[in-house]
Amino acid sequence: MNGDPTFEDVLAAAERIHGHVHRTPVMTSSAIDGIAGAHLHFKCENLQKVGAFKARGATNAVLSLNDEAAGRGVATHSSGNHAAALAYAAGIRGVPANVVMPSSAPPVKKAAVSGYGAVITECEPTLAARETTLDAVVERTGATFIHAYDNPMVIAGQATASLELITDVPDLDAVIAPVGGGGLMSGTAIAVSSSRPDITIWGSEPAGADDAFRSLRDGTLYPSVAPKTIADGLLTSLSNRTFRILSDRLEGILTVNEETIVRAMRLLWERMKLVVEPSGAVPLAAVLEHPEHFADRRVGLIISGGNVDLDHLPW
Amino acid sequence: MNGDPTFEDVLAAAERIHGHVHRTPVMTSSAIDGIAGAHLHFKCENLQKVGAFKARGATNAVLSLNDEAAGRGVATHSSGNHAAALAYAAGIRGVPANVVMPSSAPPVKKAAVSGYGAVITECEPTLAARETTLDAVVERTGATFIHAYDNPMVIAGQATASLELITDVPDLDAVIAPVGGGGLMSGTAIAVSSSRPDITIWGSEPAGADDAFRSLRDGTLYPSVAPKTIADGLLTSLSNRTFRILSDRLEGILTVNEETIVRAMRLLWERMKLVVEPSGAVPLAAVLEHPEHFADRRVGLIISGGNVDLDHLPW
Repeated sequence: MNGDPTFEDVLAAAERIHGHVHRTPVMTSSAIDGIAGAHLHFKCENLQKVGAFKARGATNAVLSLNDEAAGRGVATHSSGNHAAALAYAAGIRGVPANVVMPSSAPPVKKAAVSGYGAVITECEPTLAARETTLDAVVERTGATFIHAYDNPMVIAGQATASLELITDVPDLDAVIAPVGGGGLMSGTAIAVSSSRPDITIWGSEPAGADDAFRSLRDGTLYPSVAPKTIADGLLTSLSNRTFRILSDRLEGILTVNEETIVRAMRLLWERMKLVVEPSGAVPLAAVLEHPEHFADRRVGLIISGGNVDLDHLPW
Repeated sequence: MNGDPTFEDVLAAAERIHGHVHRTPVMTSSAIDGIAGAHLHFKCENLQKVGAFKARGATNAVLSLNDEAAGRGVATHSSGNHAAALAYAAGIRGVPANVVMPSSAPPVKKAAVSGYGAVITECEPTLAARETTLDAVVERTGATFIHAYDNPMVIAGQATASLELITDVPDLDAVIAPVGGGGLMSGTAIAVSSSRPDITIWGSEPAGADDAFRSLRDGTLYPSVAPKTIADGLLTSLSNRTFRILSDRLEGILTVNEETIVRAMRLLWERMKLVVEPSGAVPLAAVLEHPEHFADRRVGLIISGGNVDLDHLPW
């Protein structure tokens, strides 16, 4: 499958991953609604398997492989949640997982990946080193490379989060997801725009890593160069595929400051008692920083993950 | 109503508070089950209104008052969650709440109480000062004193948490709740023993605040003297009423060390992405420290609350 994923691929993914990942709850908070001046519905992917939505895409991709390819195992490079997700998904199918991780990855994420049974190969924390190391691993093992976001089956899997959200809360006016490489955002855009064209779809991105915002604004794919944000899940560049999908289907991308991300994260912890990683707080930060788009509206926000190093909190 | 609450009082409380408090979810974690060697079902009262089970008892007590008494308002002394809960419950009925708080109470708890609209009177952090100050407030306002735990309607309200737990997970072998003043534990014991005498009921208490453990062991009510624990919700003494109920209905009380409380708390944050206060982690600490009682059993644990000062975490 080489084209962009379709809504039928999303429905197939939902069926394929059913029982292997959680149908996460949608939570609300009257306290946060009062602060935001909107009716917010949080899709809690921090409560997902491996603590992030990435379990959906990786599981869909691994379960979609034919037996012969699956038997040789899967491989990826990832600084965190996709690595754990791929390890988890390989475990479901009983096949080997090989993960190339930068030596700078948080210890809590490395521990999670090895805890799920993957073989970790460390490399220098550059994209070039990650790709070179991965190529060597694939060459040696014959494993199938499952990219963290530039993969139609991964995107179709991520899409199932918003598919559940709009099913559970059918009267939403808008949906917001965070944008890193664009896998979750592309899936969200496909699931929502295909089935509910009346719902406005927003991306949200740290101002310190606003390559997707600038790319959509100018109609040119800019790589992410020296991004600077605590939202460590949102550092990567769009691919041609995710750039195309987002350009076609988003209302726009809202950028947010670091202080707003920390404030949003802390509101989720204090008022909703949810452990949310900085990237997962970016959609709420977008509502707080751009209230004009959301006043009194019913808004679905995807809390993308909850994997945070409790020894290094940003307050 | 002066006697001990009955199972009928618990059922009436459930009906009375319905719609005013959350029916909180019961969550599980295969990772924590693996560590504990048991099948654990967490009743998430940290996701309750005001962030703690206390919303149940306070709401039941305030809604049980006749109109004339309610009109004069309610009052209490509390270092934290009961204060916020009474303020919340008074707001439901639209009557004044007066709360006496020790000057040493965490800022996050004081802010919560005033946020719910209560009038706070500060006092020295001793039980004597709290009672004297409360007497003056009651004298001046005519408000009804709602004790944090030595009150049958409060106990009947707290009991609704375990009533929901055993309804949602009907095949439990054991239930564990934390013991402070004994309000939640008494309610748990009444709800579970009355309807499901086959389920074993355990209390759990910090070793540094083990007055209830010693009281049940010796058949004598010992006051809590100079307790030392990070579980700041479990510092208080049993009352004659809660001592009697616990003596009649508990299998026993399991004490736990501070390190185990911190470890249990951190497991809940890291593996379940739940913000849990130290007191709320004490039942899981009991399973970790006393595994012989729970090996391969299906155990319900009440996570009592999630109100913790994020600027002062115990790790």
